[in-house]
Amino acid sequence: MEKAGIYHQPASSYAYSYDAKTLHIRIRTKRLDISEVTLIAADPYLWNDGKWQSESYSMRKIAETEEHDYWFFAITPEHRRLQYGFLLTDTDGKTIFYGGRGFFEPTEANLATMDYYFKFPFIHAVDTFEAPEWVSNTIWYQIFPERFANGNPAISPENVLPWGSKDPTPTDFFGGDIEGIIEHLDYLVDLGINGIYLTPVFEAPTNHKYDTIDYKKIDPHFGDKETFRKLVQEAHKRGIRIMLDAVFNHIGDTSAEWQDVIEKEEKSAYRDWFHIHSFPVRQNENGNIEGEPTLSYDTFAFTTHMPKLNTANPEVQKYLLDIATYWIREFDIDGWRLDVANEVDHAFWKEFKKAVQAEKEDIYILGEIWHDSWIWLLGDEFHAVMNYPFTQTIIENFIEEKITPEQMVSGINEQYMRYPNQVNEVMFNMLDSHDTARILTRANNDEEKVKQALAFMFAHTGSPCIYYGTEIGMDGGNDPGCRKCMEWDEAKQNQAMLAFTKQLIALRKDNQAIITSGELTWLDASSETGITAFTKELNGEKLHFLFNQAKDNQDFTISFEKEAMDIWNNQAVSENLTIPAKGFLVIKENS
Amino acid sequence: MEKAGIYHQPASSYAYSYDAKTLHIRIRTKRLDISEVTLIAADPYLWNDGKWQSESYSMRKIAETEEHDYWFFAITPEHRRLQYGFLLTDTDGKTIFYGGRGFFEPTEANLATMDYYFKFPFIHAVDTFEAPEWVSNTIWYQIFPERFANGNPAISPENVLPWGSKDPTPTDFFGGDIEGIIEHLDYLVDLGINGIYLTPVFEAPTNHKYDTIDYKKIDPHFGDKETFRKLVQEAHKRGIRIMLDAVFNHIGDTSAEWQDVIEKEEKSAYRDWFHIHSFPVRQNENGNIEGEPTLSYDTFAFTTHMPKLNTANPEVQKYLLDIATYWIREFDIDGWRLDVANEVDHAFWKEFKKAVQAEKEDIYILGEIWHDSWIWLLGDEFHAVMNYPFTQTIIENFIEEKITPEQMVSGINEQYMRYPNQVNEVMFNMLDSHDTARILTRANNDEEKVKQALAFMFAHTGSPCIYYGTEIGMDGGNDPGCRKCMEWDEAKQNQAMLAFTKQLIALRKDNQAIITSGELTWLDASSETGITAFTKELNGEKLHFLFNQAKDNQDFTISFEKEAMDIWNNQAVSENLTIPAKGFLVIKENS
Repeated sequence: MEKAGIYHQPASSYAYSYDAKTLHIRIRTKRLDISEVTLIAADPYLWNDGKWQSESYSMRKIAETEEHDYWFFAITPEHRRLQYGFLLTDTDGKTIFYGGRGFFEPTEANLATMDYYFKFPFIHAVDTFEAPEWVSNTIWYQIFPERFANGNPAISPENVLPWGSKDPTPTDFFGGDIEGIIEHLDYLVDLGINGIYLTPVFEAPTNHKYDTIDYKKIDPHFGDKETFRKLVQEAHKRGIRIMLDAVFNHIGDTSAEWQDVIEKEEKSAYRDWFHIHSFPVRQNENGNIEGEPTLSYDTFAFTTHMPKLNTANPEVQKYLLDIATYWIREFDIDGWRLDVANEVDHAFWKEFKKAVQAEKEDIYILGEIWHDSWIWLLGDEFHAVMNYPFTQTIIENFIEEKITPEQMVSGINEQYMRYPNQVNEVMFNMLDSHDTARILTRANNDEEKVKQALAFMFAHTGSPCIYYGTEIGMDGGNDPGCRKCMEWDEAKQNQAMLAFTKQLIALRKDNQAIITSGELTWLDASSETGITAFTKELNGEKLHFLFNQAKDNQDFTISFEKEAMDIWNNQAVSENLTIPAKGFLVIKENS
Repeated sequence: MEKAGIYHQPASSYAYSYDAKTLHIRIRTKRLDISEVTLIAADPYLWNDGKWQSESYSMRKIAETEEHDYWFFAITPEHRRLQYGFLLTDTDGKTIFYGGRGFFEPTEANLATMDYYFKFPFIHAVDTFEAPEWVSNTIWYQIFPERFANGNPAISPENVLPWGSKDPTPTDFFGGDIEGIIEHLDYLVDLGINGIYLTPVFEAPTNHKYDTIDYKKIDPHFGDKETFRKLVQEAHKRGIRIMLDAVFNHIGDTSAEWQDVIEKEEKSAYRDWFHIHSFPVRQNENGNIEGEPTLSYDTFAFTTHMPKLNTANPEVQKYLLDIATYWIREFDIDGWRLDVANEVDHAFWKEFKKAVQAEKEDIYILGEIWHDSWIWLLGDEFHAVMNYPFTQTIIENFIEEKITPEQMVSGINEQYMRYPNQVNEVMFNMLDSHDTARILTRANNDEEKVKQALAFMFAHTGSPCIYYGTEIGMDGGNDPGCRKCMEWDEAKQNQAMLAFTKQLIALRKDNQAIITSGELTWLDASSETGITAFTKELNGEKLHFLFNQAKDNQDFTISFEKEAMDIWNNQAVSENLTIPAKGFLVIKENS
């Protein structure tokens, strides 16, 4: 038995309350080293005749990765308290007890030693991670407003370029605005999405608006508050939720606050709003050269255009929390996406969550974090993060062919095991965004690859997002390439891709519960055949997803327990399937 | 290389800010599997000519356990941001890269793939665990007030027994009170302690007072507020801090609040102060039988005498936080020990910390938790917990001889690795308490064992505590045995043990910094010889502690770099030492 590979940590994704009554227990062991895991558990105070009244439960292996196996059990302790340990049996039949003090022989005496066990002291609803229910039923659509649609040319910037007249540079303006979004809401309804994530809309000099001047003002080239209010109202009428982008890590250098510091230096009333190490902060003095690591104050990266806000300053907190609640209270927005969320302090985000939830209980809080985010996802900061590591794993297999199907499955399993189930259920999954190259470009314009990756992502737990234009086959490299004007000329849209996306969204919406919460079982993942297949099962209903990355059709045999139907092509199927070349099948088993 | 045994988790005890500038990075590998670990790290935005400007740092192995090695590096990132990964070389010379996305061959291309790395996004002072500075300089003394000294017989309970006239039962009263503590403050000064932890002093019917009636009243058999104020003042005059016991998990069943529920049932204004599953809550009805798991409301364990408070109820929060701040504000107490802290919700403890720190910035918050407590020790709940797993490991070797010296060292290392260094520095270490048998009794009255265990505990990082009477050789089994009356007859006190304890406390106080923050290196741990030896080193100064559990004196050779002195026996020493049978040596190397 490889004891060095065994891992369990109480109060983590290895032991957490799934809801106010249910505990989820996971344990990690070395891959294929352990054949059986038994959970020994009971209320710590449940004694009879001097004997602790523990019970045994067989744990189920739920995931394999390249290095590890993960085992799982869900338990509902009557009195909400649990003392527990593990009996692990390896493939040679050797059994050992593992608990909070380490490894012990499974003798009666050791099993009766209470301080050898782990504890989940008490399940509190208030400490249990809970996300708004609507999120796992949402299909998102991300809009970069300057490039979606120009609905009101009268407010376009003076230097506006004709819509789509060229590939964008970092500084171009094309006149996209909020009216343009309103005009195309019915297009989005037709597409099937029910959540819009807007990159920043507040006043800022750039086209991306991540360098805010005034957080309480809609950028005049995008519209005004009335137009924005209308957008939210019209979206809500259509069952679409609206999420805005909060850029609270830093402010724009042309903001009144930073300009005051530039002007008055040490004497500015805003000097403690920032992280200033020495004065002056004026550009080209005291090391303050754009892009150089010699800046005399903290910024986003090393850009003088984005001085970092001191979110530990109560004045700054008040200022930002007022903004965060204002747009909910006055305009009824449904979510906040938090820019560079990982570089802002946790104490601030905890206050943020309290403030916005007091305003709207089912607000969705989404952090922009590209790496492991468990510490933000304990229930008192964010509901989810932009799930780049998860989707990157899909892309590296389906799009870039950099990893094998086996490695992809390992990576996906690893990602799921990082977080509690209810976190995974509301993670924000996307294949591209304004911060990455477009998926079609990453795929060297191979549409079949894009379709496979999209279908695969939509088939997994987490809330999927389409980046504007991906549905009509738009391409583009890294910023600014990925920020081209939306193509509204239907003749120039990839209608096949649009029809595909609509069908995919519809399939997802028809099967939300099973895709979100269904038990995942991998049927196959083979670099030899290029087949990756898995089943989602919920309440006796099964969905089978089968992908074939090879250039030829491939046969695949499966056993059905109930009547099965190919719900992608809407036709009956036998157990001897043919997965189309570079395609996929979706089979549903119904009672 | 055993990759399954490698573990690192950002934002945990494996990667944390030690102070506002310093990051501590740890990684765990299979024991003796890896020969070299290199940290590759830099600011994530530090690029030059398209190349990330990473640097390499050699990590140091700081701990070995039965299954693992732990490696460490402290780094001070100039811009407070860090992107990092590990190069691990095994004993066969094979090197692999390990980062946030898993294991990769250490190719130039892989090392240049930024999303393969871990991140510590930004060091925030406000998110950094920080404990009051005074705690690591404190030697605690725990008093069970009913049994320490009777200073005012006039307020003793009617059924009071003559002091020490018999071994206590669970319900006896002997008249100990606050005046008694005041009268013996000079005894405590002479002993050398500078912190007192008092078990509950608020009004309650039992002798232990964990079933509070009124949190705003000193128990009349213990004294009144003026006496308590005098205690704090007199203690402070002598440089002694006072910590009280907050029993907030549950209230006493004779409290006005619970009596109101008993009387009015569903109609009580306090019904939501508790966790009531069904009415009635009256005893012997609806399953409400003392000790039975059929209770219709939540309690501590299954005792009807301690109904559990609903700390998620804002009214209860207000009530308890008012109490928590009242005793600081009005009486200037220095710490709160939190009873059954693990069963109260985290959300409440976060509010608790804010409230008490607003009242007194350097208040010490100590949770009663017997198991792994990392989730409470992230910086926003407690400063420390009662470190039972740590001290239990010492006891199991020195006192119970249940584990070997090697196993003890493994266990101690394991415990240190659970928490950030600054948490370990203020952990509350004790060999016995009102909740355990006395250490002398656990040692079957073997005083030499007790002395070794005490010395060993005092030689380790963490704030040590003496349970009243241990210093004079008091014995006693589990509750009620461990709650005997303090022996004040000097003829009946073990004067040798008292002198020993005084000397130990003095040694600790003379060497606080090196014991608290010195680098720990194990020199020996042998079940064959019974020797356990280690060195603490800080700023070029070294302290060597050498323990011999055998029944004969044993020779031990050590190399000194500087002049060395046996500071326990106050004599010069050579490098050829003799460790006395069942004794120990403390050697100091000075420049």
